[in-house]
Amino acid sequence: MTMKENGLTFTTAARETLYEVIFNRRDVRGEFQSTPISDDILARLLIAAHHAPSVGFMQPWNFLVIRDDKTRHDIHALFKTANEEAAKMFESGKQSLYQSLKLEGLLTAPLHLCITCDRNRAGPVVLGRTHMTEMDLYSTVCAVQNLWLAARVENIGVGWVSIFHEEEVKKRLGIPEDIHLIAYLTIGHVSSFHQKPDLARKGWRKRLNLNELVMETEWERQADLSLTTSINEELARLMPDSEEESNLDE
Amino acid sequence: MTMKENGLTFTTAARETLYEVIFNRRDVRGEFQSTPISDDILARLLIAAHHAPSVGFMQPWNFLVIRDDKTRHDIHALFKTANEEAAKMFESGKQSLYQSLKLEGLLTAPLHLCITCDRNRAGPVVLGRTHMTEMDLYSTVCAVQNLWLAARVENIGVGWVSIFHEEEVKKRLGIPEDIHLIAYLTIGHVSSFHQKPDLARKGWRKRLNLNELVMETEWERQADLSLTTSINEELARLMPDSEEESNLDE
Repeated sequence: MTMKENGLTFTTAARETLYEVIFNRRDVRGEFQSTPISDDILARLLIAAHHAPSVGFMQPWNFLVIRDDKTRHDIHALFKTANEEAAKMFESGKQSLYQSLKLEGLLTAPLHLCITCDRNRAGPVVLGRTHMTEMDLYSTVCAVQNLWLAARVENIGVGWVSIFHEEEVKKRLGIPEDIHLIAYLTIGHVSSFHQKPDLARKGWRKRLNLNELVMETEWERQADLSLTTSINEELARLMPDSEEESNLDE
Repeated sequence: MTMKENGLTFTTAARETLYEVIFNRRDVRGEFQSTPISDDILARLLIAAHHAPSVGFMQPWNFLVIRDDKTRHDIHALFKTANEEAAKMFESGKQSLYQSLKLEGLLTAPLHLCITCDRNRAGPVVLGRTHMTEMDLYSTVCAVQNLWLAARVENIGVGWVSIFHEEEVKKRLGIPEDIHLIAYLTIGHVSSFHQKPDLARKGWRKRLNLNELVMETEWERQADLSLTTSINEELARLMPDSEEESNLDE
């Protein structure tokens, strides 16, 4: 990498590293180890999150770190109740598969992180939020994704837990009503990272064909053949095993 | 990096690369060049986005690529009208600064990308979306952030444009009513990447002190001193100029 007047230029090697991080990031539930996360690692994860883009440079996020046993157990109890409600919502054919899935690592992960959005941080009128009002919520999600990728390159696992009543979690943590809970993450060292997402491995859903999701110029108009070909070629180059893996799921 | 049975282990060098990408990512408006983005670069950006996490492995996103002049000009016209409405919403003291800011590169960027969310992709009941119903919208934002970081490491600029009426943009692009527009991005090679966000450089808002955004165990309880110290130390190590830069803004 070279720092020039026109900004840092990244090398091909840096590029390959970033793609490896992106492809190897997993939503971890079953592989957490109890070893605490050191403060220097946690600091870097928070710094990565804080350098996400934000609408109107609003930086609407807060980071609530939870490491004590009592709170972790209480949040786990809220998950458990909600997960029983969730299971009942699926058709009977999918209920037993749903119930067999490990959907959280709240008790095993030594660290929880609740990431919130304060929509009032920059006053009532925010540059870039005047018309698309959800932009500040989305900025906070960008912070989550920055943190998730940073964790992966630190060889740390992250799981995003979303099966509970948001209001109950907020109440337990003392989060004010006007603050939005965006993400509740479990974070920890892991015994392993799987090559594929849990839900693909377990046959819940498979990875979709990217080319079927890309359109050009207007909705439902197929992308140019040259782009479609490039997608196939780059996929084959970057992820030589991906097709084979997805067939194994079927 | 070594691939072992328990997954890829990233090195310290990979870690430093990822943080450099995160810290050097910018929201680009004024520096786009007209050189087209090659299909292989675009393919890699889309592959990065498609490998974002998604609730219930739903992959609810679509990618609408826009490269033709007519559409780019039409979207620019929608921005222009909305931006005049937006300017009037700010207090008179901030209006002239607002109007002096370059908030989009719609005509100069050779490529636009509209990223949408199809909330019906996996049927009415989605694993992980049963209680926090916005999770699929957030998954799509994770795809945006993956793409944004991939673009930066490819030395490609991205700007997220949010100043227009969502319904007007959807209508112009033929996007069905039940599909959510999440992000409208401008993408292109750039003459330079600034070291700091535009809105910081122009004195709109400054970067907040991360330590004031971190809490522990419950809302408004300060983080432990050891974490606070680690944040300061890691910030000083990873971004030695950051404090100085933020003082220049004042």
